[in-house]
Amino acid sequence: MEIYLDNSATTRICSEAVRKMTYVINNIYGNPSSLHSKGLEAEHEITLARKTIADVLGVDFRELYFTSGGTEANNLAVFGAARAKRRVGNRIVTTAAEHSSVFESCKALEDEGFEVVYLEPDESGNISEEDIFNAVDEKTVLVSVMIVNNETGAIFPVECIKNIIKKKNSPALFHCDAVQAFGKIPVKPYRIGCDLLTVSSHKIHGPKGSGALFVKKGTFIRPILYGGEQERKIRPGTEALPLICGFGAAAGDIGIIPKNLQAVGELRDYTLGRLRKIEGVKINSPENALPYIINISAVGVRSETMLHFLEKKEIYISSGSACAKGKKSHVLSSMGISPERIDSALRISFSKYSSREEADAFLSALEEGLGTLVRARK
Amino acid sequence: MEIYLDNSATTRICSEAVRKMTYVINNIYGNPSSLHSKGLEAEHEITLARKTIADVLGVDFRELYFTSGGTEANNLAVFGAARAKRRVGNRIVTTAAEHSSVFESCKALEDEGFEVVYLEPDESGNISEEDIFNAVDEKTVLVSVMIVNNETGAIFPVECIKNIIKKKNSPALFHCDAVQAFGKIPVKPYRIGCDLLTVSSHKIHGPKGSGALFVKKGTFIRPILYGGEQERKIRPGTEALPLICGFGAAAGDIGIIPKNLQAVGELRDYTLGRLRKIEGVKINSPENALPYIINISAVGVRSETMLHFLEKKEIYISSGSACAKGKKSHVLSSMGISPERIDSALRISFSKYSSREEADAFLSALEEGLGTLVRARK
Repeated sequence: MEIYLDNSATTRICSEAVRKMTYVINNIYGNPSSLHSKGLEAEHEITLARKTIADVLGVDFRELYFTSGGTEANNLAVFGAARAKRRVGNRIVTTAAEHSSVFESCKALEDEGFEVVYLEPDESGNISEEDIFNAVDEKTVLVSVMIVNNETGAIFPVECIKNIIKKKNSPALFHCDAVQAFGKIPVKPYRIGCDLLTVSSHKIHGPKGSGALFVKKGTFIRPILYGGEQERKIRPGTEALPLICGFGAAAGDIGIIPKNLQAVGELRDYTLGRLRKIEGVKINSPENALPYIINISAVGVRSETMLHFLEKKEIYISSGSACAKGKKSHVLSSMGISPERIDSALRISFSKYSSREEADAFLSALEEGLGTLVRARK
Repeated sequence: MEIYLDNSATTRICSEAVRKMTYVINNIYGNPSSLHSKGLEAEHEITLARKTIADVLGVDFRELYFTSGGTEANNLAVFGAARAKRRVGNRIVTTAAEHSSVFESCKALEDEGFEVVYLEPDESGNISEEDIFNAVDEKTVLVSVMIVNNETGAIFPVECIKNIIKKKNSPALFHCDAVQAFGKIPVKPYRIGCDLLTVSSHKIHGPKGSGALFVKKGTFIRPILYGGEQERKIRPGTEALPLICGFGAAAGDIGIIPKNLQAVGELRDYTLGRLRKIEGVKINSPENALPYIINISAVGVRSETMLHFLEKKEIYISSGSACAKGKKSHVLSSMGISPERIDSALRISFSKYSSREEADAFLSALEEGLGTLVRARK
């Protein structure tokens, strides 16, 4: 039996999304921008997807802009906001634990003359409200903080940010990367008070290659792509019809978030309980992390070695962000975790479909792996 | 019977691509960047698609970078090349008849200090070699010229450009937008001598939302998106697996280009012959245009009115670029065509599947429309 516990890297497409995509690729082929009814038919499908996702977020569907995924949406938010506000100030506040699509975009903005503050998480992986408060000032034009960290599951204190921006009399736009949070905890841009928010299809059992940026009505950002009239010129290019429809179907199939969260919470508690009893295992995720993600170190065994061992048993987990393709984790580094623990880091990530049997199979294999592989080194 | 003659806007997905996509969305779900075998499985599918498309282009598969479509690929080429060469010069040579994704990107580069020369086509829609020769100089860092114009089918003299760049001792990179040419005439970057070349999936019966940029080995361009390690950092973001696989399958199903070209050529000649006999019809496409596209004006009837009339008979054509959503054509304007003819412009675009019966149905309906609608105005 295949045991896939790498759901923060990507997820299986759910049957609702498969069904919708199958229908669309077989029947709907117009260009959504065409003025005839073949175009309107396609446009109608996109609007349905847009409304479905908007509904989950509690926003107006006209505030959602489809992109090619979380990476593009994060780039659009970061570059789009910073460049739009360039004349007002040149400071950006973010964290050292953001996804590379925010992190590297901020690095690139340094070359454009922006000063970027990368707040470091503490050793448990959390970001402090006080640090955010101290970092934001009157020259800050963008605050970009993720809701859930993709490697540790740490939940960052995004609810405090709107007030901080206000108190500090800052002109900043506030962006949340909600890629790992969307569909797992309630994500409501208006409750958070953010101006921009990123979601992605393939983390919620939709297809890979689709995402969306929420842009609060009245917020102006600069596009990063230029061309046609699509997505009201914020994001031109013929829409990725099959993916957008699959994304919409997956969003409609998220289910009852608190119920899923409770079930995964129980699975996490059970898994953590057993992990704590395994010699050599250190927990890297904070206590209050999102239960969908557990980051551990199997000290003494390099991540790749353990992944390879588990893979032979058809158990799939990861060493961290898939986008990093095995590069050393900048997230764990920023937490001040020892190199030895970083080199042996493992991320187990559940989905709402994960079961205790799968956790058990993983735990037994991990124990066996630690026994065999650590001994082999001695 | 539905008659779809708007294939330059977008095409039906071919059965090979549907089959491949159906397989992938049901069976392959790993993240291509994941290090375990679920990831490798997905990566393998992407490599297969990449090799298939590269083979059609006659390039190495490592020279192809997947994007979210032609628009993004054109943006990546134009911004990527200009910004990479900024220190060498600030002049860009392009045409006034490019697709909006090249045209608007060049406009945006003017704000970054670039001087852009937009060569105008003559009234038949052709671009002259001499104009290109005179425009390129030692400060020119990018020449971007499309192979086939999307509105008129005009074929631009791209084969002369490499030599011009050489003769003029110019450091320019040479980009071709091949979106409308790919799959319809042989498109071989090494024969053309370009450094960058754009192709798109949904114009060759693949799904919407996927494209690729050929970047000649050794050519350095700046990315426009930042993040993960995907596409060798030229284009980060989790790959749009279902679309890329569909794109690959469609490329593998292009068939014998000269054979398709001959058949469509005969269909075009037949259609043109009949069009010339219809009173009030003016031909806007040049004589030597790609036969897949015929641009005409049904003088006296506004484009929308005629499109609407034809649509009622389930005949689908367009007034120009779908990406412009009905905005006045900048291509026809650049040719110096009269406003009256622009307002009544119609684009008929064939695919390799188009038949004489479809052309006949369109021609009869057009005649009927001209009779009814012009009379109605009098």
